[in-house]
Formats: sequence, structure tokens, C-alpha cells
Amino acid sequence: MKVVIIGAGSWGTALGKLLAEKENQVWLLARRKEVCDSINERHENPFYLPKIKLPHNLKAALEPKVLKKAELIVFAVPSHALRETLKALSKDLPEKPVPLVSTIKGIEEKSLSTMSQVVNEVLTPAWHSFYTVLSGPSFAEEVAKRLPTAVTIAGYEEDICSFVQKTFASQYFRTYRSFDVIGVELAGALKNVIAIAVGISDGLELGLNARAALITRGLAEISRLGVKLGANPLTFSGLAGMGDLVLTCTGSLSRNRTVGLRLGRGEKLEDILADLTQVAEGVRTTSSVKKLSEQVKVETPICDAVYQVLYQNKSPQDMVLALLSRELKKEFDFAI
Amino acid sequence: MKVVIIGAGSWGTALGKLLAEKENQVWLLARRKEVCDSINERHENPFYLPKIKLPHNLKAALEPKVLKKAELIVFAVPSHALRETLKALSKDLPEKPVPLVSTIKGIEEKSLSTMSQVVNEVLTPAWHSFYTVLSGPSFAEEVAKRLPTAVTIAGYEEDICSFVQKTFASQYFRTYRSFDVIGVELAGALKNVIAIAVGISDGLELGLNARAALITRGLAEISRLGVKLGANPLTFSGLAGMGDLVLTCTGSLSRNRTVGLRLGRGEKLEDILADLTQVAEGVRTTSSVKKLSEQVKVETPICDAVYQVLYQNKSPQDMVLALLSRELKKEFDFAI
Repeated sequence: MKVVIIGAGSWGTALGKLLAEKENQVWLLARRKEVCDSINERHENPFYLPKIKLPHNLKAALEPKVLKKAELIVFAVPSHALRETLKALSKDLPEKPVPLVSTIKGIEEKSLSTMSQVVNEVLTPAWHSFYTVLSGPSFAEEVAKRLPTAVTIAGYEEDICSFVQKTFASQYFRTYRSFDVIGVELAGALKNVIAIAVGISDGLELGLNARAALITRGLAEISRLGVKLGANPLTFSGLAGMGDLVLTCTGSLSRNRTVGLRLGRGEKLEDILADLTQVAEGVRTTSSVKKLSEQVKVETPICDAVYQVLYQNKSPQDMVLALLSRELKKEFDFAI
Repeated sequence: MKVVIIGAGSWGTALGKLLAEKENQVWLLARRKEVCDSINERHENPFYLPKIKLPHNLKAALEPKVLKKAELIVFAVPSHALRETLKALSKDLPEKPVPLVSTIKGIEEKSLSTMSQVVNEVLTPAWHSFYTVLSGPSFAEEVAKRLPTAVTIAGYEEDICSFVQKTFASQYFRTYRSFDVIGVELAGALKNVIAIAVGISDGLELGLNARAALITRGLAEISRLGVKLGANPLTFSGLAGMGDLVLTCTGSLSRNRTVGLRLGRGEKLEDILADLTQVAEGVRTTSSVKKLSEQVKVETPICDAVYQVLYQNKSPQDMVLALLSRELKKEFDFAI
């Protein structure tokens, strides 16, 4: 099968390697000529996935014409770039719809749209049921090293979803299918706000108990918000929710957790952001969550606290004190 | 208020310190004379909570007669010791029932009883509604250092549960109440089996993706089992379930995770157990889960795999391969 992956970052490259090893003909659509050349000539992507040998049937291209004969298309660009990318590429898409796989974890800031909503707005209706989202705890470097990984793949149609599930499944890459597209998208995006909160707590050296409590209570509040926005609550207990949150909060340094860590240690947000070479999706998502939680009237005390630290100059210490001094409560005051 | 804590280990001592700082008169009922003397004379418990100064209104006793005037009783002994301890102390209990707080995370091996069931079998019916269980992500050392911690307290009666909630709550110790006694008990016990599985994966150096996936899928299967045994599924997403599991699996070395780690590195179970000075509850719980899951017909592939490694000499490598090569599935095939 001919697969095109839009985006040649670390995750796009790792998934490309996986699919090429399963004897697909895979094209990575890159923006930078040096990335493209390196993949085609040296079979390596030293910019985003260094020291990993790539198979020869994984090729890179700069020209979108490779899309025309694609039988599967994967999106691996930042969330703020998807709309413009799709618009620019729409005339190069295959004539008949083919399965789409989004691997993006973010919410569009102005529209508050998830990636499925962006796709629905840009592509013709015939494409909509071909959309799927792949998400879960998956550091690209570990997938590239063939270490065991499990992810969720959510779609609207059973046959499309099963097709994508089988396409990605391998001996070390386990895929579970779901029909909760919006839930998987929201879980992947919202968890980044909690990762910032956990980073702040770790930066303040509040300990492992506090970290575990923030992860748990944080997941509970983004689940509440997600359910109001149409998600199945089980999704947040799954690989795309809890799994990815645990990885982001306790694994190596994700960009979002790093932002929190440095805030907790007393640095200013503008200095931290100036240092980052790639976007920390959670900073924008925090602002989106603020608007979404107000719209649907869901209490999100941890996300609110992160918002106050990021956008209203509240000190991280005050944030923690405010969270701890809330009135005593039941653990769950909503019923499923 | 006069509080008696049965058991002067690290957790009993840390909770005693917390309650004594809230101006209660707290007695730790110890087994060892040197522990008792050290607490009373040097205001320290060097055996189980070294380098922590204890308040003077936290005292220790060897004689159970201190129980007679207790207004709150806390259980902090290993699960296999509760039945005999309660039997031995029953004549020393106050004449009228007072609130009971269990902090024990285990299942009795032969009877497959949780601690509430043991208490119900040993004490007179008048006591039953006074039972509560306190559980959640809480390393004793961090609580003793006044680092922020959040736990769940579950009871049968609203007024007893609220009373215990307020008694323990402090500026750094946040308590949430619940009515799911059996759920909180099962979550605390069953998570230790998953901690062994995660230890095995880490011992085999399978990476962070695998660890996050095992935590997530492990929680899903012990939730399924818990629900069949009468638990509310939300409890497993809460502090006593997910929170404690995340702490045990990613924090410092818990005894259960250590057993797994060393198995994963190729050591023999008998050698590992011979080295441990305290019981790893999860080793016994794995055998209990095997019986329970067969009784109520719930699929628990990860717990089964741990059972095969612990009790049937299966190699950890084969365990992982078997888990990864299961047929492709939906992520959730049960409805709540």
C-alpha cells in the first residue's frame, strides 16, 4: 500500500518507519529540503529522529503530488498548522477518499475546534467518515527502537477503523480501536494542561504524593469537561487519556512538563517560551480550556490555576495553596 | 480527642504525627519494645520513619489497655495480621463503638476477604457501620515532611465518614470522602499486582511507552474485576486506584515493584523474597486475584501473566510476548 505522512518530525518519521517495515511504500511529505535529502540519501532523519536507521522503502518528498496515489494519509503536523496545510494540499488529494489518520494532539486556538472538526470544515463531506485519530502513550524514539507500545485508534466507521488498526499493528505496536473520535482528540489535547500543572508541582519540589494526586484529580476534571463536550468518559481512563498523561507527567521531559517545571522554579513564561524550539501545545490549550469550561459550565480548578499562572501572573506557590485550601469534598460528585 | 493507632510502622507513625499536630492525644500501639521506647523517650521512630521529629503528644504503648478510652481507632498492620490482632484486642476495645479507620492494602489470602469483611467477621455488628478505609497515593515519608498529599476516605455512614474526613484534613493533607468501601479496599490491594507487572517490564528495559500501557491496561482489568466484586468503577479512576497505582509504579521503589524489577532482570522469586524484610503484599494478592477472577469470570490477562511468572515458572520474556500477541481488540468491550 502507498502511504503518505504529512510532516517529517519525530512522530511522523517513527510511524513511517513502522509502516515501511510492514512492506508499505511510505512517503514523508517534508517542508525542509535538508530533512528530505537526508532521508532519501542517508536513510536517516538527524533533525528529528537521530541515530535511527530508516528502511529504504521510506522516502521523503517536498512536492505534494505524491498524495495523488496515496491509499492512506497520516497527519503529523502541529495543531495550529493543520487547517492551512490541508487547504494548501486539497487539490493534490486522491480523487476518491482514502483513510485519514490524525496523530495531532491539540485544539485550534481561535475556533476551539479539534482536528476532526478542522478536517470536516476544510475537506468535502465525502471524506468525513474516512477520518481516524491515533493517540496514546508513545515516545517516538521508543517506537523507532521497536519497544512495546500500545495506542488507541478511533474512527467513525467500523471498517475504516479496523483497516487502520490492522495497518499499524505489529509485533511491538499494539492497536486498540474505539469509536470515540472526539474523546480521543480531547484527551490527547487536554492532558497537556495537566502536564504543565504537574511540572509546576515538581518544580516547587512538592513530592511524589502531590504529583500522583494532581495527575488523578487533573484527569478527573478534564474527563468532566470532555464528557460535557461529547466524549465517552471511559476514553479518559484509556491509553489516549490516562496512559498518555502518565507518560507525559512521569517519563522524560515533555515540552509541556518542562514549561511547568521552569515556572515552578521561578522563571518567567516569556523567557521559557523564548528558549523552546518547538511549540508547547499545552500553553495554548490552557487558554482554550478556560473558554471551553466557561462555555459548558464545568469546574476545572487545576486548569484554572494553570491559566492564572500562565496568563495572570499568579505565583505557583499561591496556586498550590489555593488548590489545597478548597473546601472538603466528595471524591466524585457526578454520576456517569 | 484520644486516638489509638494499631501498628507503629512508617505509615502508622506518619499518620500519628499528623493527628498529634492537630492537637489530638495519639497513642501508637507497638509490638517491639525498642520502637515504643524510642518514640516515648527520643520522640523518633528510627526503625520505620527515621530522622523525623515526632510531637510530644504522640506516645507509644505496648499494652492494649490504651484502647479502652479511644475515640478513634486506626488499623496500620499488614493484611495477614489484622484478623488475629483484632481477636487478641477485642476485649480491650471501648464499650461503645467508635470510628475505625483501616489503612491496610491487601486481601486475606485464604478467605479472599477484604479488611472490612474481616472486621465484620471479628467484631460485633454494632461496630460495622463505624468502619472506614483511608487510601490513596501517600508515601509516609512525604506526609511526615508535610508535603501535599490527597487521599480518599470511604465509609458506610455519611456522619462517620465526614467526621474521619475532618479529623485527618490539614493544610497539606487533603481528604476526599466516598461511600465505596469495597471499591477503595480492592483498588488498594489489586494495584499491587499491576505494580509487579510494571516492575517486570522495567526490569526487562521495555521502556516508558510499555510502562504507561501496562499501567493503563492494568488499571482497566482490575477495575473490571472490582466492578464484578461490587466496586464503583469511578473509584478505580480515583486517588485510591489510579493515583496510588501511578505512585507505586513510577515513584521510588515500592516493595511490589522491586519484586517485579528483579524478576525482569532474571532473578528467582525465592531469592528475592528471602531478601525482603517486609512482606510484598502483591505476591499473595496475585494468587488471590487468580481465584477471584476465575470465580466471577473476568478476563485479567496482565494479572494472569504475573501469576504465571510468580507461581508457574513462566519466563518474563514469554509473558510479554504473550501479552503483545493477543488478537486485536476494541479498547473497551464492556459498558458501565
